[in-house]
Amino acid sequence: MRVKATVEYKGGGYAGWQVQPGLSTVQGELERALRTATKSESRVEGAGRTDAGVHARAQVAAFDVDDGTDLWRLTASLNGLVGRDIAVVSLESVARDFDPRRDARRRTYEYKIVSGRPRSPLLDDYAWHVSAPLDDEVLAGLAETFIGTHDFSAFRASDCEAPTTTRTVEVSRWRRSGASLVYTIAANAFLKNMVRVIVGTMVEVATDKLDAGAVSELLAGGDRGGAGRTAPAKGLTLISVHY
Amino acid sequence: MRVKATVEYKGGGYAGWQVQPGLSTVQGELERALRTATKSESRVEGAGRTDAGVHARAQVAAFDVDDGTDLWRLTASLNGLVGRDIAVVSLESVARDFDPRRDARRRTYEYKIVSGRPRSPLLDDYAWHVSAPLDDEVLAGLAETFIGTHDFSAFRASDCEAPTTTRTVEVSRWRRSGASLVYTIAANAFLKNMVRVIVGTMVEVATDKLDAGAVSELLAGGDRGGAGRTAPAKGLTLISVHY
Repeated sequence: MRVKATVEYKGGGYAGWQVQPGLSTVQGELERALRTATKSESRVEGAGRTDAGVHARAQVAAFDVDDGTDLWRLTASLNGLVGRDIAVVSLESVARDFDPRRDARRRTYEYKIVSGRPRSPLLDDYAWHVSAPLDDEVLAGLAETFIGTHDFSAFRASDCEAPTTTRTVEVSRWRRSGASLVYTIAANAFLKNMVRVIVGTMVEVATDKLDAGAVSELLAGGDRGGAGRTAPAKGLTLISVHY
Repeated sequence: MRVKATVEYKGGGYAGWQVQPGLSTVQGELERALRTATKSESRVEGAGRTDAGVHARAQVAAFDVDDGTDLWRLTASLNGLVGRDIAVVSLESVARDFDPRRDARRRTYEYKIVSGRPRSPLLDDYAWHVSAPLDDEVLAGLAETFIGTHDFSAFRASDCEAPTTTRTVEVSRWRRSGASLVYTIAANAFLKNMVRVIVGTMVEVATDKLDAGAVSELLAGGDRGGAGRTAPAKGLTLISVHY
C-alpha cells in the first residue's frame, strides 16, 4: 500500500530534509521511525528537499507499507517515535504510482521578516530580523516582477545542479501580519535556495544596496553574482504542495 | 523623566513578570538591564503581572530615568543587555504620573489551541494541544456568555487575593487561524489566571466534561471548584494594553 504523508516540522534542529550520513535530517528521522513502527525498511520520498533550518507546515512525503495497515494507528506510532520538532499530521492511502516530487503541480512557500524595529522574541525562530524599515510599496512592486515564466539561473545556490533553470511563478506577494512582513511565493517547482535568494535580493533593493533595475535584468538571464545575499533559512516555511 | 516601555517576551524561560527572589523574571531582567545601562536603580512597573510561561506581544511598563536621556540609544542598550527572549520594542516619554497598571483601560489577551489533530511543532511553544476536535459553534456560543460585567470569582486562581471579583469583558470570541483556534478576550482588568480558567472551562464544556449550563451558573456567582481546569500558560499571550 502506498501512503501519502503530510508532515510538519520546525527546521532549526535538522540538517534539512534529505538523508545525509551522520546528520540528523527529517527524512532520516521519518525512515527511522517507520522502521521501528513497521519492522521493515521503507524509503520515504519527499515533495521537495528543504534546506537545513527551513520549516514546513505541510511537506508531502510518500512511502510503502503492508496492505491493510491501520493508518490511524501508524500516525500515532510515528508521532510517538519522531522527535518533538516533527509531526506526522496525516496519512492517507494513494495510488501505487504516486510520486510526491514528480506529481506535484504547485509548491507554496512563505518567508517572514521582522523589520524596522528591534528583534521579536516571539517570531525569532521563524523570521529574519532586518533592522532597516522596508517600504511596502517597493516590496510589492519587486514581488510582481517575479510572476510568470523566467530563467531563474541568477536566483539559486551556486552549487545548484538542476539541468533546467526555467520556472513558472504563479503567486508572488507581500502582506503585513502583526509585527511581520510575510512573502508568499507559489511556483510549479523551485531551484535550490531560490526563495531565499529572491527574498535576499528584494531586501537589498529595498535597502538601496542593489539597483531596482537589477531584478528585471537578472530575470532576463543574469548570473548568481548579480543577485542579493541568500536570506537566512529560519525565515522560510514550506506551506503546501498541490497535486 | 517618566518612560513608557512596550515590551515583548517569550514566557517559557521566566517565572513570570513579577520579581521573585532567586528566580529569573521579566521585571527582574528589565531592572537589571536598566541598572547596567543607566548606572542607577529604577523600579520597572508593569501593566499586568503575567504568570510563569505566559508570553507578551506588547506588555506595557514604566520607569524613571534622568531628564534628557536619549531613548533611542537606551532602547538599543537595553536590548543588548536583556536575554534573547525579551525585547524592548519601544520607549517613549510620558507624563510624570503615568501608572501603567492603574491607568490601563483595557487589556487584550489571546489564547491559542491546536485541536483535533496531532501536535504542531511550529506552534508548540505558543499553543495548548487538545487532541479532541472542538466544535466552532459550541465555542462561539460559550465565548459570548462571558461578554459583559460579571462576578468572575469562579474563574480565577484559588490563591487569587483580589479584593473585588467583578470585571467587564468587552471582547470574547474565537477564530480559526491556520492550524489553530485563537480565543481573544479584552476586559478592563483580569483576575489571577482568569483567562486560563475561562479557556479551560470552555474546553471542558466543548469536550463534554462539563455541562453547558454550568458556565452561566458560575458567572452568576459560583465557586472555583465548579469551573474547568486552568489551561496551560504557554497558550496565553498578552496582546496589548490600552490607555
